[in-house]
Amino acid sequence: MSGFARLGDPGSEIPVLQREGVSYDLRSLTPEIDAAFLASGGLDRARAATDLPVLPGAASMRVGPPIARPGKIVCVGLNYLDHAQETGATVPHEPVVFMKDPSTMVGPFDNVAIPRGSEKTDWEVELGIVIGRTARYLDAEKDADSVIAGYAISHDVSEREFQLERGGQWDKGKSCETFNPFGPVLVAADEIDDPQNLGLWLRVNGVERQVGTTSNMIFSIRHIVWYLSQFMVLNPGDVINTGTPAGVALGLPGTPYLVAGDVVELEIEGLGYARQEFVAAR
Amino acid sequence: MSGFARLGDPGSEIPVLQREGVSYDLRSLTPEIDAAFLASGGLDRARAATDLPVLPGAASMRVGPPIARPGKIVCVGLNYLDHAQETGATVPHEPVVFMKDPSTMVGPFDNVAIPRGSEKTDWEVELGIVIGRTARYLDAEKDADSVIAGYAISHDVSEREFQLERGGQWDKGKSCETFNPFGPVLVAADEIDDPQNLGLWLRVNGVERQVGTTSNMIFSIRHIVWYLSQFMVLNPGDVINTGTPAGVALGLPGTPYLVAGDVVELEIEGLGYARQEFVAAR
Repeated sequence: MSGFARLGDPGSEIPVLQREGVSYDLRSLTPEIDAAFLASGGLDRARAATDLPVLPGAASMRVGPPIARPGKIVCVGLNYLDHAQETGATVPHEPVVFMKDPSTMVGPFDNVAIPRGSEKTDWEVELGIVIGRTARYLDAEKDADSVIAGYAISHDVSEREFQLERGGQWDKGKSCETFNPFGPVLVAADEIDDPQNLGLWLRVNGVERQVGTTSNMIFSIRHIVWYLSQFMVLNPGDVINTGTPAGVALGLPGTPYLVAGDVVELEIEGLGYARQEFVAAR
Repeated sequence: MSGFARLGDPGSEIPVLQREGVSYDLRSLTPEIDAAFLASGGLDRARAATDLPVLPGAASMRVGPPIARPGKIVCVGLNYLDHAQETGATVPHEPVVFMKDPSTMVGPFDNVAIPRGSEKTDWEVELGIVIGRTARYLDAEKDADSVIAGYAISHDVSEREFQLERGGQWDKGKSCETFNPFGPVLVAADEIDDPQNLGLWLRVNGVERQVGTTSNMIFSIRHIVWYLSQFMVLNPGDVINTGTPAGVALGLPGTPYLVAGDVVELEIEGLGYARQEFVAAR
């Protein structure tokens, strides 16, 4: 098992391939883990390389998001039955689609800002898909396999008042600064046995809040990618957040929303561990 | 009056400054009209330059969108009273916000693809704002002036069935391939006397369908920018579509939606003219 990561300060991350705890510097192959690298088969090229140097000091470096800024972040809402039910929403007949500002993507251990005036900042652990090849009007669900580069943990942080009580569309509560921690690693699709059978966990201050499995998605990964490709072009480097299982504050009467100082931990089987402290927006 | 444009084939446009029908090549100043150029005062620097070469053959070149791919496209819905009324929507108490895939941006004379299966592809002429400086938590509406780089004609093409009848959120009907023609020019904000007093027109096959003025916006340009900055960070190169006046097919019973071969022309006072032919998606 190996994973792709980007290490270093925001805006100057170094692309690496991680294997058995060692980070190999990819800068001889690519300046970035981005659309061009993904579209040109970079994940295969990097894993096949035999002469990559070890990156010194990697263990003490900040972990950035494993891909450079995505072209878009498309999200599927209400894609787990138990989550749709806990929020009182109708179970969707076809995928509910919304977007996040792609500049919200931050590293998996970065702080997340609770927006000024927010009283309902909420968590959502999600399987994130990274697109590796252009997808438009895919003929069949199975064609999705050829356009997915890999997977990562995605935290679809959400402000429920902004999303649901401030008029109109959800995007307003989904695009706040730092609202999409991503990573720690991008794992190539061919290294995941069955992406539709991965456990997901989320803890708030050590208390387990979300426990799920991607086998409970209403719309499968393949269906989502096929479906979206009928409405929009998916480009290399785009990210799809595939929905969250039950256990968010919105769905748990009496459970407090996030406040400054809270710590959220996320895990997805085979994709590692992420941890964010929530802080008041400066 | 001068305007910024990008001329040439998709992906290899040349940045120019247009004055009195002459296109001046900006490549000695910048490789692109993008976030970095806007954020560093590029519009002022270019207009102050006295030794820019004329770009030969400019008149016969394709006109691209006047900015390189934006970081995001944020849209305000139902921002003209007459349009909100014609669609049967409640007049919003605060801005309705949604997003378009930024990769939908195309040139002002490019073809627009009617999505496969679409029966309700509709038009929307809008004043587009281009952000020039980072905006987050602006204190007051007047602070918007310092973050707006300029304005351009934006065509917020919309598929009404995808938007309104396919479950959930609007983004699904707003992000189809080629759905955001933009330009022909970006006019710097300081060259527009009053952006809140510009006429807008849209014709379909020569028949006038939309006639409006930005003075009829429910939420002003300054309010929109201030408002959005409370929910998300606006970055240089981001685009805001500010809503459309009445006269869209959705609001005109008996008016046909767009079909292949239809031609849509758009004008906004001081921002030029755009014209797109609609074709069936390949």
